[in-house]
Amino acid sequence: MSLFLSKGTIELKSAPSIKSYAATVGKKEGDGPLADYFDHIAEDVTMGEKSWEKSESLLQQSALRIALEKGNLSERDISFIFAGDLLNQCTSSSYGLRDYNFPYIGIYGACSNMAESLALAGIFIDNGIGDNAAAITSSHFCSAERQYRFPLNYGAVRSPTSQWTVTGAGCAIVSSHWQPPYIKFITFGSITDMGIKDANNMGAAMAGAAYETISAHLANTNKNINNFDLIITGDLGKIGSDLLYDLFKRNKVDIKHKHKDCGTMIFDTENQKVNAGGSGCGCSASVLCGYILRELAHSRIKNVLFVATGALLSPTMTQQGESIPGIAHALHLSAQ
Amino acid sequence: MSLFLSKGTIELKSAPSIKSYAATVGKKEGDGPLADYFDHIAEDVTMGEKSWEKSESLLQQSALRIALEKGNLSERDISFIFAGDLLNQCTSSSYGLRDYNFPYIGIYGACSNMAESLALAGIFIDNGIGDNAAAITSSHFCSAERQYRFPLNYGAVRSPTSQWTVTGAGCAIVSSHWQPPYIKFITFGSITDMGIKDANNMGAAMAGAAYETISAHLANTNKNINNFDLIITGDLGKIGSDLLYDLFKRNKVDIKHKHKDCGTMIFDTENQKVNAGGSGCGCSASVLCGYILRELAHSRIKNVLFVATGALLSPTMTQQGESIPGIAHALHLSAQ
Repeated sequence: MSLFLSKGTIELKSAPSIKSYAATVGKKEGDGPLADYFDHIAEDVTMGEKSWEKSESLLQQSALRIALEKGNLSERDISFIFAGDLLNQCTSSSYGLRDYNFPYIGIYGACSNMAESLALAGIFIDNGIGDNAAAITSSHFCSAERQYRFPLNYGAVRSPTSQWTVTGAGCAIVSSHWQPPYIKFITFGSITDMGIKDANNMGAAMAGAAYETISAHLANTNKNINNFDLIITGDLGKIGSDLLYDLFKRNKVDIKHKHKDCGTMIFDTENQKVNAGGSGCGCSASVLCGYILRELAHSRIKNVLFVATGALLSPTMTQQGESIPGIAHALHLSAQ
Repeated sequence: MSLFLSKGTIELKSAPSIKSYAATVGKKEGDGPLADYFDHIAEDVTMGEKSWEKSESLLQQSALRIALEKGNLSERDISFIFAGDLLNQCTSSSYGLRDYNFPYIGIYGACSNMAESLALAGIFIDNGIGDNAAAITSSHFCSAERQYRFPLNYGAVRSPTSQWTVTGAGCAIVSSHWQPPYIKFITFGSITDMGIKDANNMGAAMAGAAYETISAHLANTNKNINNFDLIITGDLGKIGSDLLYDLFKRNKVDIKHKHKDCGTMIFDTENQKVNAGGSGCGCSASVLCGYILRELAHSRIKNVLFVATGALLSPTMTQQGESIPGIAHALHLSAQ
């Protein structure tokens, strides 16, 4: 049963388990430093499909299938699935999951999707609503670039602040308290607009939202950064992470030594030519469902504040001269 | 506290109240048969804004503002808002609500958004998660046509099966059990694909999902259609409604005499040149938050099964030859 603490923050009193999880990624991500943690690495970016959108749907299908297998679960064990992605109308989710006959609750929080879906799944299970609730999201470099910036064939030059959309998916399945990792607290964030208008500087657009959500979470749960082994943001990249440190420094908090960012964890940012780092729903999803949850399950880390960040970027609105609102949702995940 | 009944269905044991609600619509909707029920009717489709997307954002802002006023609530009374819309990246919600400082949970279920957001808001309140949770969605004829079909300036001919996207928004605010209308049961539906490939025949694409969700709701709650005064679907229009009747007839159930559809309620389908009827998130949202909730509050109707239907249509996927998956979510709303 959940306890509402304060603005946006909820304690999951039963501490539901993340029973199973899987991460599937593309070749470039499989060449990165987290390669050993992923459940499946595709041989090429098409994955044998005829369109990028279908490749991305396949990533979700694989992540779900492997998560079900690892949890010794079948399709009918899933009471609800919370799903969404970056594509217009969230098509990698709706087309990827349409053959499954389980209740589907579509979400959209851009790259905050992994946190948003997992938070809602956690709340359902904490309140006895269903036996197993799945959370899933994905992104694909080629489908995202075409939709948000330029088709790759144009060969557009990438700016130094740009981030590389991760080709990857993550699926986590929540069930009642059983074994770690556990979901203990959740904070849903508010929309925060830093006035950034550059669609190639997503990290800056999201840093303010990450700052607001982390600050709210700590205040509402009466904790400080020392209660966590790690505070892991979704995809701020190098520039957004530096901005986050600056924002905390104003309050004399040095968050840098506790902080990691999925966007700089998933790639070798020095040698993989990803500029400011990785991004996309699949970035925090594959790092969470590949690396973080596994480390928690084995108690190699004890307490993580996982903060997936989303840039609510719209090409249409950017063309109309609008800035890019950001959002971030946080989960306190624990091995204890 | 919620009780999980069976696949997709949840009983809200506390029966939360829909404390306040408001519907704002465009001029054409204000010329229709439900005119007297809307809280605000815009004088023209631009609403004084320079883009259709901004006009649609304004519709949401007005609906929220009026719902807050009618409920004697302020921004800080809202613990969570569940929001989404039809535009790519749900921009009428994220840009419309970015100036508000309340936790924002983005959803995407196409035209099922009103049911999905209200269901999640109901579940939060039923489990004591927050004091007031808002649900909001919108659509706009001009922004939707440009995105999904053709820019209006092209003057494309509309097929007889096409539906007219409603310019409108609805906002409902849920709080604990107090006075009617109440939310008693919820069923989240699964994705159902009827194989329809015509983006101008949304009603047919959604009829199967409506049938599946209504059938599941009745079975899981051990009810039949006679337990309801009305079963109101979101935006099947004339063609989708006829298909729904046919699907129920296979089981020897005559649902027609209990059924209404927001898409045929909001317009005078004989004289307003809307072909098969209205559609869009704003269709079921404005009919719910204008007409249905008011009728329930005054006990002029006692029990309604509100079933908002969504066509998970994507122009990208339609161009790739794919069919259109449908989804429907249901709420049992009651005056008692």
